[in-house]
Amino acid sequence: MRVIFKFLQVAIFILPLIAMRQDKPLRVIFFGDSITQAGVGPTGYITKMSEMLKTKGQDSQYELMGAGIGGNKVYDLYLRLEDDVLSKKPDVVFIYVGINDVWHKTSSGTGTDPDKYVKFYEALIKKMKAQNIRVIVCTPTVIGERNDASNPQDGDLNQYSKLIREIATRNSLQLCDLRKSFQDYLVQNNPENKEKGILTSDRVHLTEEGNKFLAERMMEALVQK
Amino acid sequence: MRVIFKFLQVAIFILPLIAMRQDKPLRVIFFGDSITQAGVGPTGYITKMSEMLKTKGQDSQYELMGAGIGGNKVYDLYLRLEDDVLSKKPDVVFIYVGINDVWHKTSSGTGTDPDKYVKFYEALIKKMKAQNIRVIVCTPTVIGERNDASNPQDGDLNQYSKLIREIATRNSLQLCDLRKSFQDYLVQNNPENKEKGILTSDRVHLTEEGNKFLAERMMEALVQK
Amino acid sequence: MRVIFKFLQVAIFILPLIAMRQDKPLRVIFFGDSITQAGVGPTGYITKMSEMLKTKGQDSQYELMGAGIGGNKVYDLYLRLEDDVLSKKPDVVFIYVGINDVWHKTSSGTGTDPDKYVKFYEALIKKMKAQNIRVIVCTPTVIGERNDASNPQDGDLNQYSKLIREIATRNSLQLCDLRKSFQDYLVQNNPENKEKGILTSDRVHLTEEGNKFLAERMMEALVQK
Amino acid sequence: MRVIFKFLQVAIFILPLIAMRQDKPLRVIFFGDSITQAGVGPTGYITKMSEMLKTKGQDSQYELMGAGIGGNKVYDLYLRLEDDVLSKKPDVVFIYVGINDVWHKTSSGTGTDPDKYVKFYEALIKKMKAQNIRVIVCTPTVIGERNDASNPQDGDLNQYSKLIREIATRNSLQLCDLRKSFQDYLVQNNPENKEKGILTSDRVHLTEEGNKFLAERMMEALVQK
Repeated sequence: MRVIFKFLQVAIFILPLIAMRQDKPLRVIFFGDSITQAGVGPTGYITKMSEMLKTKGQDSQYELMGAGIGGNKVYDLYLRLEDDVLSKKPDVVFIYVGINDVWHKTSSGTGTDPDKYVKFYEALIKKMKAQNIRVIVCTPTVIGERNDASNPQDGDLNQYSKLIREIATRNSLQLCDLRKSFQDYLVQNNPENKEKGILTSDRVHLTEEGNKFLAERMMEALVQK
Repeated sequence: MRVIFKFLQVAIFILPLIAMRQDKPLRVIFFGDSITQAGVGPTGYITKMSEMLKTKGQDSQYELMGAGIGGNKVYDLYLRLEDDVLSKKPDVVFIYVGINDVWHKTSSGTGTDPDKYVKFYEALIKKMKAQNIRVIVCTPTVIGERNDASNPQDGDLNQYSKLIREIATRNSLQLCDLRKSFQDYLVQNNPENKEKGILTSDRVHLTEEGNKFLAERMMEALVQK
Repeated sequence: MRVIFKFLQVAIFILPLIAMRQDKPLRVIFFGDSITQAGVGPTGYITKMSEMLKTKGQDSQYELMGAGIGGNKVYDLYLRLEDDVLSKKPDVVFIYVGINDVWHKTSSGTGTDPDKYVKFYEALIKKMKAQNIRVIVCTPTVIGERNDASNPQDGDLNQYSKLIREIATRNSLQLCDLRKSFQDYLVQNNPENKEKGILTSDRVHLTEEGNKFLAERMMEALVQK
Repeated sequence: MRVIFKFLQVAIFILPLIAMRQDKPLRVIFFGDSITQAGVGPTGYITKMSEMLKTKGQDSQYELMGAGIGGNKVYDLYLRLEDDVLSKKPDVVFIYVGINDVWHKTSSGTGTDPDKYVKFYEALIKKMKAQNIRVIVCTPTVIGERNDASNPQDGDLNQYSKLIREIATRNSLQLCDLRKSFQDYLVQNNPENKEKGILTSDRVHLTEEGNKFLAERMMEALVQK
């Protein structure tokens, strides 16, 4: 009798959890630019993450959603935050933005100043935190794959990466340091010091190898707790 | 008896209006960049407008507030819209932004693309309209005072001015066409075709004459109905 | 006897002229950027000029040579002046450069400052004059075909055009005011105020109509004396 | 008698050499931008080099001349090569240019493309070599003193430095690798990772410490043979 009671007690506690797990997978939104827009394509990094989850039999536990638009900078994310993220009630959001903020400075004169970058980034975080979203911030990957710090935007990308690391610390957020991962990989795997063709097809957008590598880094960050 | 009743009927209707007029002057916010930031200074255009109202004995009917921050572009206004405008419950808002969106393209590589400019501009309008604010949109004045269309950014400023005129039409808003006013004035009053020194001290920021001229144009727009 | 003497007198004077005309056509070099590089193509403006001369039976009097290289700015012309122009001993040189000097400011951050533009332009002229070349300076045509001064670079192109007109005056050179011609043409022939598709295919490079129009303007300048 | 004859023989040979040494010190020109323009000022690096030579009693053996003009890029050096360098018949020329070629890309949209940079650089070298000048090429120092590769232009400066090292190899020229020297120094002497204030006053132009450090590096390169 006592045992049955005990069992019921436990059941009352546990059942909803089981139910929740079954009915409501963790909703994860990837919020970013063209790399993330391509991420939901056949060989994109989000698609690859879904496949990884399926292989591990965990696909029912996660719902991965892409929210990437080509050419987006941090303030573009801010403009569409409500519609494309908050309204979807995600549990986790990866913010992966910064390449265009740096790149467009010389390609069209419309990049983002570092102080404004931080301002909008933290405005994004504030609104997501208010909705209890677990935010994971990513440093920008690469514009050019040379591994000797001689890609024209290397210094600026390093600067913005430092700003993001500071944002992570200041806001107690999880950091997914993609730039560091990519740089470490290229030191090992780009012996000819090529500008593109390893992780990217055009210095920025990802090859299948790049998408796979990115998917692995994102997955590590997602399951880490 | 009937008369008294009638009087009461009317009084009930009119008294609040009178009260409103006395207690609640029309709150007008000027939302912009460094020109508007300087607008509340001793010789700034907002100060001059207040003086004009006092001279006409209408200073109790209007409350003019500056909300300008140096270096602001359209997306900066969007970021601080809630704090600096909506929360202040204005009746009227002048949006006067665009110079930095154009200028920063070459001065620091951080201008604003025209399509993004329109997107943020209309996002501003949408939020203000939802609060029943009367929005008056202004075209950007000048970067350089030459009157023969040879200031480097003239074409781009004209482009953004056209976009604002289209925004005004599309959203049924009042237009304060500052750029046209400035250009017309400079055709008449810049016989030596100087780059600065008439309405601006440095090609952008206003001299006292410039502030006075701007105050008059803004006042015309404000009282027009 | 007197007649024969008279005839000989005249012959002495005229024969060298005939000889010169027959043996040595006027060598004309078009010195410029991608528009001039395309100028020697099947429908290019230089090819069209040759055809015009043939139709008028004057093709033996002129030798037209293209010396255009894509992406060239004024200082690129200076670097290859000796090899591509002076060494070829031309009688006439059209300098037609400036679009990239303006355009590259925002497209790659590598345009040319106006004061440097003038400096290199006059350095070109000085070296050509030292070789007794007849120099014809051309204003830059268009970046965008809108006819209401709202193409982003209109102001800057107007500025550089004014500088070229001043250079022409200061150095007593013939001016071929292409920008003015193009603008006048577009006021008449671009009723929909389109950005491209009339004289240019992509806002800069010429359609066949553009090449024909340019050829006519260049021909007028060439035969004018 | 024979001895006297022998003596005279030797004297005929040696005297001019002595005379040359006394009358004609090695003429060294520093060809560059604002850093070099300031180099001849009271605390400038060229002035400091002269003082170093005096201390060593070698001031009669060298004649150091500054040929720096603020804002100069590689093509500006090319334009004034004849007047400011070749006509002065120098024995040695230091080429120290590149900061503005990189910097002006974002500060005014008028930087220099890397391929053009190389083209003009080698054109400079070719003309100097034709005059038997000993050319020493210098890599650009810094735009920002942070020592963790996060100054915005670090990648681009590294790229141009690599191009200069390749130019040195390709043309068998002596290299003065200022960028490497500065970076090594800042790793040791900028523990707070400051942006300026160690070798530069404003991220680019040199403090007295910077001028001293530069003078030492230049001197090492000059006396090396």
